[in-house]
Amino acid sequence: MTTRLELTEKIVRIKIEQDLSWSELAALADDLSKEFVTAGLLGQMTLPKQAAEAIGGKLGLDAFEIKLLQVPPYRGSLPTSVPTDPLIYRFYELVSVYGTTFKALIHEEFGDGIMSAIDFRMDMQREPNTAGDRVAITMSGKFLPYKSY
Amino acid sequence: MTTRLELTEKIVRIKIEQDLSWSELAALADDLSKEFVTAGLLGQMTLPKQAAEAIGGKLGLDAFEIKLLQVPPYRGSLPTSVPTDPLIYRFYELVSVYGTTFKALIHEEFGDGIMSAIDFRMDMQREPNTAGDRVAITMSGKFLPYKSY
Amino acid sequence: MTTRLELTEKIVRIKIEQDLSWSELAALADDLSKEFVTAGLLGQMTLPKQAAEAIGGKLGLDAFEIKLLQVPPYRGSLPTSVPTDPLIYRFYELVSVYGTTFKALIHEEFGDGIMSAIDFRMDMQREPNTAGDRVAITMSGKFLPYKSY
Amino acid sequence: MTTRLELTEKIVRIKIEQDLSWSELAALADDLSKEFVTAGLLGQMTLPKQAAEAIGGKLGLDAFEIKLLQVPPYRGSLPTSVPTDPLIYRFYELVSVYGTTFKALIHEEFGDGIMSAIDFRMDMQREPNTAGDRVAITMSGKFLPYKSY
Amino acid sequence: MTTRLELTEKIVRIKIEQDLSWSELAALADDLSKEFVTAGLLGQMTLPKQAAEAIGGKLGLDAFEIKLLQVPPYRGSLPTSVPTDPLIYRFYELVSVYGTTFKALIHEEFGDGIMSAIDFRMDMQREPNTAGDRVAITMSGKFLPYKSY
Amino acid sequence: MTTRLELTEKIVRIKIEQDLSWSELAALADDLSKEFVTAGLLGQMTLPKQAAEAIGGKLGLDAFEIKLLQVPPYRGSLPTSVPTDPLIYRFYELVSVYGTTFKALIHEEFGDGIMSAIDFRMDMQREPNTAGDRVAITMSGKFLPYKSY
Amino acid sequence: MTTRLELTEKIVRIKIEQDLSWSELAALADDLSKEFVTAGLLGQMTLPKQAAEAIGGKLGLDAFEIKLLQVPPYRGSLPTSVPTDPLIYRFYELVSVYGTTFKALIHEEFGDGIMSAIDFRMDMQREPNTAGDRVAITMSGKFLPYKSY
Amino acid sequence: MTTRLELTEKIVRIKIEQDLSWSELAALADDLSKEFVTAGLLGQMTLPKQAAEAIGGKLGLDAFEIKLLQVPPYRGSLPTSVPTDPLIYRFYELVSVYGTTFKALIHEEFGDGIMSAIDFRMDMQREPNTAGDRVAITMSGKFLPYKSY
Amino acid sequence: MTTRLELTEKIVRIKIEQDLSWSELAALADDLSKEFVTAGLLGQMTLPKQAAEAIGGKLGLDAFEIKLLQVPPYRGSLPTSVPTDPLIYRFYELVSVYGTTFKALIHEEFGDGIMSAIDFRMDMQREPNTAGDRVAITMSGKFLPYKSY
Amino acid sequence: MTTRLELTEKIVRIKIEQDLSWSELAALADDLSKEFVTAGLLGQMTLPKQAAEAIGGKLGLDAFEIKLLQVPPYRGSLPTSVPTDPLIYRFYELVSVYGTTFKALIHEEFGDGIMSAIDFRMDMQREPNTAGDRVAITMSGKFLPYKSY
Repeated sequence: MTTRLELTEKIVRIKIEQDLSWSELAALADDLSKEFVTAGLLGQMTLPKQAAEAIGGKLGLDAFEIKLLQVPPYRGSLPTSVPTDPLIYRFYELVSVYGTTFKALIHEEFGDGIMSAIDFRMDMQREPNTAGDRVAITMSGKFLPYKSY
Repeated sequence: MTTRLELTEKIVRIKIEQDLSWSELAALADDLSKEFVTAGLLGQMTLPKQAAEAIGGKLGLDAFEIKLLQVPPYRGSLPTSVPTDPLIYRFYELVSVYGTTFKALIHEEFGDGIMSAIDFRMDMQREPNTAGDRVAITMSGKFLPYKSY
Repeated sequence: MTTRLELTEKIVRIKIEQDLSWSELAALADDLSKEFVTAGLLGQMTLPKQAAEAIGGKLGLDAFEIKLLQVPPYRGSLPTSVPTDPLIYRFYELVSVYGTTFKALIHEEFGDGIMSAIDFRMDMQREPNTAGDRVAITMSGKFLPYKSY
Repeated sequence: MTTRLELTEKIVRIKIEQDLSWSELAALADDLSKEFVTAGLLGQMTLPKQAAEAIGGKLGLDAFEIKLLQVPPYRGSLPTSVPTDPLIYRFYELVSVYGTTFKALIHEEFGDGIMSAIDFRMDMQREPNTAGDRVAITMSGKFLPYKSY
Repeated sequence: MTTRLELTEKIVRIKIEQDLSWSELAALADDLSKEFVTAGLLGQMTLPKQAAEAIGGKLGLDAFEIKLLQVPPYRGSLPTSVPTDPLIYRFYELVSVYGTTFKALIHEEFGDGIMSAIDFRMDMQREPNTAGDRVAITMSGKFLPYKSY
Repeated sequence: MTTRLELTEKIVRIKIEQDLSWSELAALADDLSKEFVTAGLLGQMTLPKQAAEAIGGKLGLDAFEIKLLQVPPYRGSLPTSVPTDPLIYRFYELVSVYGTTFKALIHEEFGDGIMSAIDFRMDMQREPNTAGDRVAITMSGKFLPYKSY
Repeated sequence: MTTRLELTEKIVRIKIEQDLSWSELAALADDLSKEFVTAGLLGQMTLPKQAAEAIGGKLGLDAFEIKLLQVPPYRGSLPTSVPTDPLIYRFYELVSVYGTTFKALIHEEFGDGIMSAIDFRMDMQREPNTAGDRVAITMSGKFLPYKSY
Repeated sequence: MTTRLELTEKIVRIKIEQDLSWSELAALADDLSKEFVTAGLLGQMTLPKQAAEAIGGKLGLDAFEIKLLQVPPYRGSLPTSVPTDPLIYRFYELVSVYGTTFKALIHEEFGDGIMSAIDFRMDMQREPNTAGDRVAITMSGKFLPYKSY
Repeated sequence: MTTRLELTEKIVRIKIEQDLSWSELAALADDLSKEFVTAGLLGQMTLPKQAAEAIGGKLGLDAFEIKLLQVPPYRGSLPTSVPTDPLIYRFYELVSVYGTTFKALIHEEFGDGIMSAIDFRMDMQREPNTAGDRVAITMSGKFLPYKSY
Repeated sequence: MTTRLELTEKIVRIKIEQDLSWSELAALADDLSKEFVTAGLLGQMTLPKQAAEAIGGKLGLDAFEIKLLQVPPYRGSLPTSVPTDPLIYRFYELVSVYGTTFKALIHEEFGDGIMSAIDFRMDMQREPNTAGDRVAITMSGKFLPYKSY
């Protein structure tokens, strides 16, 4: 076991073999959401020591692997710049279709700057609906203004 | 004036010249959010007749241009598959970093399927915060299950 | 055996070694078409438990592999964005040549929206013809209208 | 007016200005389907003389433009190799997800070869359905076997 | 040995080790040209049973490998869309430089349609010449007319 | 009129307007084949003075345009590295499928080197056939051996 | 004059015609560095009102153009994702060669997070040196930690 | 252990296992900065003999691996031409946004030429700041003028 | 006339119209080679004042255009990253085939570093040869060592 | 050991382990330059029998590996179409910047045609210079005229 990618594949395999859910695994981490922990286990976030040890213990990872979960990863979870998986592609499509709208409305409300993708949190919930349940995603990112200098 | 892209550039120019805001323009459209109307004026959504005529009138568009706003456009608002604008790139980065997390958690909650990007709505608001205001985005898309056959 | 891609390669190999056909394998799955089952065995669809166990048993897969067939895969079955295989390329060519025609005629009939690729079924049959038999493909996807909001 | 692309843009504009439908235009062409004629007017097929003259007359095209409709075009109607428009993308996604399934099942039924995209016809119809109408597409392409030599 | 690509590498290695030529190997296949057989051994064509068994026997392939030669392969023999090898690049260059000429002259002679790359044969010969021998390639592909419908 | 590309578009337009064929135009050039002349008029070859003047006169080109036909062009006639036009794509497909076969057989016959695409000629003819006429292309390129030094 | 890109080209032309330097232009803007102002005039930053009016007046821009300088632009100043200009390429090369080093050392010093490219300033100076003067660039960007949630 | 890439992966693993920092490792190299040594250990620079032996000894590398650290590597540390990791992407974004500004100001100060990325040094430090600490990077590259000849 | 690219096209056109050669034009520039001047006139080098004025006068350029020749251009003369023109492609092929050889031999002779493409000169001459004349190119670039720091 | 790429990696490793230079290895080949032999050992040229056996013996290669050095390789030594290594990139940059100049001057001197990259030789030498030694490269390629036909 050397790389974070191999560790991610190992975690996914053990999770399937042991019939674990991401929510169950995330519950082992103090004060962390299921979104953050899942991203960490999928190789995109750095887990705190407590979370890495608790979840690593549950999954039977070795000492190096538990340390590796605590090292900032080389991020980027997709094999191609345009994702081929339909679920993930729909989010890419939203960026493609709504990207200039995001830009227009955020600039209108806040002036020139961006929404941070670092000082950021997100939450995914089921939204019951008689016409078919909906996926509800809320995102919150700090507005960062461009500063003149 | 021939293409939708040229119409978008014209609308952006008039908006700047007349010091109009997207919110003001959207207020002319009955029952439509600022997000939907802005996307329509930027060439990504089909405006209903009332909205096209009210906003087209305000902007001084001609009859063909008002009709063109009511024709489904060839969507995709970005010049490159990886966006270069930092504000829009941050959304692409979220897809790149969180894409597999979105997939894992939606499948865990709903089973195999996707979040629709068609039966979809979104809302962008300022979230006041003493450590710096935040951009709050809520998305709601119908879950569409893969059907076996 | 770790990944779905490796499982696909293994299934293809066993099928050749044992002189099995996709239709024979699909016949082991209750109420499923040969199209859906083949896509599942090639790593693109999630098989129901009954199908995974019946076909996995026939192929001699182990318990983890049978579970893996029931997990939503990272979809996308082609190694390049423009497919190099001539049979598959012809379908890509149809999208390239007829794409704007599909768009024009579906919008004319249904208004703005898309044909779902999720709530979708397809069927492939031989169409006998004295000038040479033909491949007949029928597709049926739910129309999903863009909703204004 | 010089190129076929410019002619396509002109035809689309006149169609919008005159509130014409593709079906109406296609009805002016003897013995041709709406699918074939629309593809021709969108710059992807060669129209026969009768169709070019009847439709060109209706649209007010000049003599050169009517001739141009009868010249085999440089085909390919999409601006990028992966289409950005969601309606057209769904067809690309079908090729990406089902491509290897098409290949497996056609080879199983017919042996080595392809479905022709040249000796080909297609038809798009509305399929009424209480759960929401569906887009029904039927394709028929001659099977062309690879010949050994 | 699992995939066709690995089988191709194995065949190339054995051919070098045993000092065999493609022509010698092709001579073991009844009624097949050296061009077709070489393409088959390089993973691009489906060999008939007799040829697979005769050549597979000569090369010492096992039963699965001999079957694999009889399965339609995922075609495309080049690692990049623009080939880097100078010999192969020259053919790509001919398509780049002469592509529109091929198109113009074939349409002038035959009308709208294509030269089939499936119902196709080719032959490569040495053409003696005092200024330096030449490579003579003849290709013959069935003309397939686009059919209106 | 400034660039060779614009000149090519102009020539194509005049040819259509005047109902001329490539063969007729080529017949005005002393001792040149229709393949070479067509490539020249499509911006890929340098025409000799006699040919440029005779054909330019027929087409009504001005003095600069006739000179421009005699200047070596920046070659490459296709808008994308993988051609989208089906007729031209089939030739690209042949390179993709048969590229390694060309390489194997030419090296077997000639040793290490290439077939020249410069000291090269080609000829396209109709090959009558009761099962449907065929396109017959013969190519002849000088073999150029790699020289050690 | 419609787009920001056209405005940038116009500014560059006037600057050459009038023998102005970027430093002279930047001196007209209160409290802004030459780096920020130059980026603004090249279409990458939003100029404050005072700067836009003072510099726009000097350059003879019209009222719309002066407003356009105050609108957040679609950023990204390079025509290709890998820059071809040698001066700019050297910076890209530094990212390519030192990217993982930047990542390793910033994480070691600060933990997981990034250097902001928004809350950022930079300065370029000549550094005299007897072995040849040097370009000295200092950058300062706020460290933004990834927050767990 | 064969390639430099494998050696880099091994070094990263040992560093994590032994809780070493890049600064500690760099301190073992006489007269070299932490930036240069880290780049060397990550496969981008050639380490001098003393540094390779001292650090290699600490890490337990074998004789070939210590030699390999002294061989000029094939440089380029990123898996894609546009980096996906957010920390590294921010530097790429700076090149994209500020590239033409770098070019304008360096030419204004120095004339035509480039900043060397070879005769180059850089330094990364923490810059304390009450509004949040900052990453301070200073770069110094020799100016190289284009010479006319 | 606004951009350097348009100026290059204009110069090429005038040169053809007036039957001028690059050598004749270069002879108007004091102390400059034909290689440097041609690169300048093709938009890749900055011409000194004397050369810009002498050649600009000969070609009938206006004052702005003569100034533009003295401004460092955005370099890169090719429309695609892999050149399609056969003459230019051959040089790209040499980099592709011999690139690692250049690297190996320069490092063996000089140690780690590069050959400068800035402090560089080149010369192209005809090398008479009874087997056919040869193109002789000599390049001379300063060796720039990587410096440790 | 199966492929040429693996053989190249093995040769590079042995060369480092045994402290051999490319020049020493090339000296074992009768009548061959260091440039040709190095390219052969790096997998880009076909070595003659004597050279393969002499050098293979020195390096301890087995019989298959020595044969493999005598088989024409699939050429192309770089992992990406735009090289990332700075030394090799500089050569690519020369093609990008000087490509149209090479084309203009070779056509002016020789007419339409190319410099052969097959009937080609090159030589790399150190050019002593008090301002810093220079890399001197001389290339000689046969001019190949396009032939009309």
